[in-house]
Amino acid sequence: MDAQNSFFKALQGISDPEEKREAITQTFYKDVFGKLVKQSGARHLLQGTILTDIDETVAGIKRQHNVFEQLGIDPQETFGYKIVEPLVQLRKDGVRKVAEALGLPVSIYKRMPFPGPALAARVIGEVTPAKIAVVRKATAIVEEMLARVSAFQYMAILHNDRVTGIREGKRDFGHQIELRCWDSIDARRAEPTNLPYELLVKLAHKITSDVPGVVSVTYNITAKPPSTMEAV
Amino acid sequence: MDAQNSFFKALQGISDPEEKREAITQTFYKDVFGKLVKQSGARHLLQGTILTDIDETVAGIKRQHNVFEQLGIDPQETFGYKIVEPLVQLRKDGVRKVAEALGLPVSIYKRMPFPGPALAARVIGEVTPAKIAVVRKATAIVEEMLARVSAFQYMAILHNDRVTGIREGKRDFGHQIELRCWDSIDARRAEPTNLPYELLVKLAHKITSDVPGVVSVTYNITAKPPSTMEAV
Repeated sequence: MDAQNSFFKALQGISDPEEKREAITQTFYKDVFGKLVKQSGARHLLQGTILTDIDETVAGIKRQHNVFEQLGIDPQETFGYKIVEPLVQLRKDGVRKVAEALGLPVSIYKRMPFPGPALAARVIGEVTPAKIAVVRKATAIVEEMLARVSAFQYMAILHNDRVTGIREGKRDFGHQIELRCWDSIDARRAEPTNLPYELLVKLAHKITSDVPGVVSVTYNITAKPPSTMEAV
Repeated sequence: MDAQNSFFKALQGISDPEEKREAITQTFYKDVFGKLVKQSGARHLLQGTILTDIDETVAGIKRQHNVFEQLGIDPQETFGYKIVEPLVQLRKDGVRKVAEALGLPVSIYKRMPFPGPALAARVIGEVTPAKIAVVRKATAIVEEMLARVSAFQYMAILHNDRVTGIREGKRDFGHQIELRCWDSIDARRAEPTNLPYELLVKLAHKITSDVPGVVSVTYNITAKPPSTMEAV
């Protein structure tokens, strides 16, 4: 189902992270999934909400898109269907253990987390189709070049700030991509992975060469806390 | 001479890097230094413009504040005094050699470069007294912790973009500081310094602990080109 127009429309003009997350939540549960439910006659949505999603949302750190009951929202009343959450008592490491015990393949139970709001969580400021194209290209490079690194999660983030660069001896006021690569057990605490300097420099070279408009790449060196895993 | 009010006033509401550089140039040469000249009867300004300043300004990469004649501006006509530039045929490495040959102390001829527009060149977006206070604090930490690193230049840059952080279990939508540390001979080309991971993590910890409002620190891993040394 191609729902990109609905999401881009909902995100237009919004730059506050929490407002962006709320716009994505409403668009998904009410509009995109709501329509599917009406068309199909389905009465339930089965989804993988985990304990950390609830903790962070209730504490007001980040509004995770998949949390409702704990915020006093009844999905049946609001969206017209029930939500079933079998993993709601587990954290990431617990989910992996259950998946392994159930005999799921390693590509599933060791799979890297990816945010509910997808690449919209990887764009600082307003989300537009052009910005998503930039961050998607950078993400593909990062995922390919770090595929053999055993980290909890790695990502590329497109900044809204622009910085001065040079291309062929001329000014190029361009974009900056921030890379994050985390070591973590359950996402509650995390440390930046000690990636080799040569790999970092190669990543920056590849991204500034292959992604149009990007003149600068940084690597995040902060722990969580006080950082969070995703910037948005 | 305390001229901060003149500079902050000239910078108010401006976020484009080239407009910021132009505002600082005009404020310094016309207003701040111009007044000194009138009061003192001086007829010359002796300044250390070098060849790289002229190259980058003429190429349109960055408007260096100390370049006039090559842009067709006559300082005598425009500001009321002559500008004397004895180093204008040299680059950074040549200046260092001349200073050493003249018997100046090593603390002078090996001194780290610092931008003409000072910390205003280290703030992305509008420059305010509050932002200068933040970047000054981060700069002091970087200069202290990297004092023994033999790099060409190191710096802290305050971003305008804000990112989501956590403090004491609560959301803290805060600032990000970008660190840059360059290996270079003459500033025309540069590589990020291969700083030890432990030192980077320590820097991030110290900055997020001691500088109010900062929840995230990155390290720039891009070469010049396509980056420039300073972000603004």
